[in-house]
Amino acid sequence: MGTVTFLSDYGLDDDFVGVCHGVIARIAPHVRIIDVTHGIARHDVRTGALVLRRALPYMPAGVHLAVVDPGVGGARRAVALRCAVEENVLVGPDNGLLIAAAERLGGVTAAADIGRSPLRLRPLSASFHGRDVFAPVAAHLACGTPLAEVGEPLDPDELVQLELPRARVEQGCIVAHVLHADRYGNVMLDVEHEDLASSGLVLGQAVTINGERAMYATTFADVPVGGLLLYEDGYRTLSLAINRGSALDTLGLSFDAAIQIVAGA
Amino acid sequence: MGTVTFLSDYGLDDDFVGVCHGVIARIAPHVRIIDVTHGIARHDVRTGALVLRRALPYMPAGVHLAVVDPGVGGARRAVALRCAVEENVLVGPDNGLLIAAAERLGGVTAAADIGRSPLRLRPLSASFHGRDVFAPVAAHLACGTPLAEVGEPLDPDELVQLELPRARVEQGCIVAHVLHADRYGNVMLDVEHEDLASSGLVLGQAVTINGERAMYATTFADVPVGGLLLYEDGYRTLSLAINRGSALDTLGLSFDAAIQIVAGA
Amino acid sequence: MGTVTFLSDYGLDDDFVGVCHGVIARIAPHVRIIDVTHGIARHDVRTGALVLRRALPYMPAGVHLAVVDPGVGGARRAVALRCAVEENVLVGPDNGLLIAAAERLGGVTAAADIGRSPLRLRPLSASFHGRDVFAPVAAHLACGTPLAEVGEPLDPDELVQLELPRARVEQGCIVAHVLHADRYGNVMLDVEHEDLASSGLVLGQAVTINGERAMYATTFADVPVGGLLLYEDGYRTLSLAINRGSALDTLGLSFDAAIQIVAGA
Repeated sequence: MGTVTFLSDYGLDDDFVGVCHGVIARIAPHVRIIDVTHGIARHDVRTGALVLRRALPYMPAGVHLAVVDPGVGGARRAVALRCAVEENVLVGPDNGLLIAAAERLGGVTAAADIGRSPLRLRPLSASFHGRDVFAPVAAHLACGTPLAEVGEPLDPDELVQLELPRARVEQGCIVAHVLHADRYGNVMLDVEHEDLASSGLVLGQAVTINGERAMYATTFADVPVGGLLLYEDGYRTLSLAINRGSALDTLGLSFDAAIQIVAGA
Repeated sequence: MGTVTFLSDYGLDDDFVGVCHGVIARIAPHVRIIDVTHGIARHDVRTGALVLRRALPYMPAGVHLAVVDPGVGGARRAVALRCAVEENVLVGPDNGLLIAAAERLGGVTAAADIGRSPLRLRPLSASFHGRDVFAPVAAHLACGTPLAEVGEPLDPDELVQLELPRARVEQGCIVAHVLHADRYGNVMLDVEHEDLASSGLVLGQAVTINGERAMYATTFADVPVGGLLLYEDGYRTLSLAINRGSALDTLGLSFDAAIQIVAGA
Repeated sequence: MGTVTFLSDYGLDDDFVGVCHGVIARIAPHVRIIDVTHGIARHDVRTGALVLRRALPYMPAGVHLAVVDPGVGGARRAVALRCAVEENVLVGPDNGLLIAAAERLGGVTAAADIGRSPLRLRPLSASFHGRDVFAPVAAHLACGTPLAEVGEPLDPDELVQLELPRARVEQGCIVAHVLHADRYGNVMLDVEHEDLASSGLVLGQAVTINGERAMYATTFADVPVGGLLLYEDGYRTLSLAINRGSALDTLGLSFDAAIQIVAGA
């Protein structure tokens, strides 16, 4: 039994997600579909890419369908990418959405341009390629159709890359950026577990974040209700939170905002 | 392995959808459930009917459960309808919700009144027939129980019809109506692909929509960001959109609003 | 084929629910997952407990995963509870979330502390025990792993209890409390079907609710649009509603608010 995971910005208020499930189930009745999330903000390719990158290592190996596609019907490519780890295959638009997850899964070993795939639905719409191109290709791949049969060969070096801000980590001082926030207002920064070693930050000690006092802590319960904490989130990414509150709202942060973290109060 | 698709106005904030899944899974452990959407606005039977009509052709053949039911516990009938195409069966209230989808699936070949079905749950609630009447009947049908055993025979001619506005399409001028909008603010009109031939509209040319300049285009990317377009949506229904914006909000439209479309700027 | 049901306050905007599905599917590829709801308000343990209690009797027997966990990473216990009815097993934090459902399922016959379960994921995060502790333990239980192997034995008498208000039901007068409201604004009170016998309320007769006229009715359609009704909801719990409106908003109610119900107008 194969698996297709599915991430999009379609939301659940309309039938877009359900219809893609239907298309997959018609082609591949025995394939299991796992919804990663459909709550990515409309057209927010970068957040989609970051959520996909962190979520896929927890998913069963198989096919991973992702659609955040502001350029649908335009010139952007549609692609399927085979990755080194467990032969996972990613399917979606070539706009940076897939590439960070592909790197996390060992890098792209083969790619196909599926924009003119023989497996597309007919009549092909101009605005719903999730249903007409990506879902059917993902379903056929999950049934065992080889990558070579879903589209034209593509040089992986030609894939669109994802641009991300880059934090500066020095002894006792970090200049990071806001990448993303979850629905609790916890704010994800562009610093991973591996980057933290050179910061000299010590768990349980005070830090100053854009001038505000905070604690570098393990979890929410380490600070009082309403207290600001810096912590590694569930994906080992450096994050800001307020215990039982919203760091995003309280600090008034927006995407890409610079966050200066200094050791000491 | 049978399939039950499921559309409702229950939303996902409460346990209503989950409980219906549970009821189906207890009766029919091997049946796959596909959620079409549960985001229909509360009691909006017409939108439920339109979404069902356009979504079901993409679903696997089987049983289709739909519940938008403002008259629950009152005099409205509960029904199961067998359709001509692939013996699909629709289950839900007889308030117009199912009838447009049934017509799209070839029309009703047999109907049953399931309001007193022997397959109802006990005790029967007055306000949650999704769980107590519709879900168990759908589950038994998906397991192969014949229509004749889930309720009393019903003359299909007695089914409640759905009232819809009717667009006027003439050479160079369309007077249409707002049927529905998706979460992006794209606005669906009451003009289908087949109706467009007599309009004389030409792709790529300017049109005037309620006095505003727009383009009759293939997809969003054909107009600048913020530009208004008239296009056939993913279901080949004439629609209005603003590239990366909301036509619904920008034009200040509400359901049934008249939309005058004139060829030329 | 086993079943895992899943309730949480994670919402569907992020990937938390999807990632837990992925973790379960990797461990237990043939286990079916049924989402009860993920719309519990953040950290609202009591509503989570009440929704779980009413929903689980409709679910297939199996494993029931529930995560509303404001104390994650702190001192609260993580537990798995086997219940008398059909050997259902509940998995989640020991903060009162599970206990009302366990009682509805016949009471706890055996319990395990899974906070240091050998089945936890590594590295263990401090803030996402749904993924790292609860989901993997639930998945292994659904595959048949015995309770004794997922954690340390725990005395069921030590489990944290849930505190609930307690209604007073007398002849012709009830003083109840607001427990919960659904997305329609229907308000659930702390009076169950069994408690109503001693109230002497008669279906179809007038009642006064906090000074407002209402009817004690069977369903919404028994009162005019906009009318206030007192009724047994789909779970046989006494509730307030306004036909096609929101009782919660119209009456300006909040959780635990006292509701005085007097027979007669």
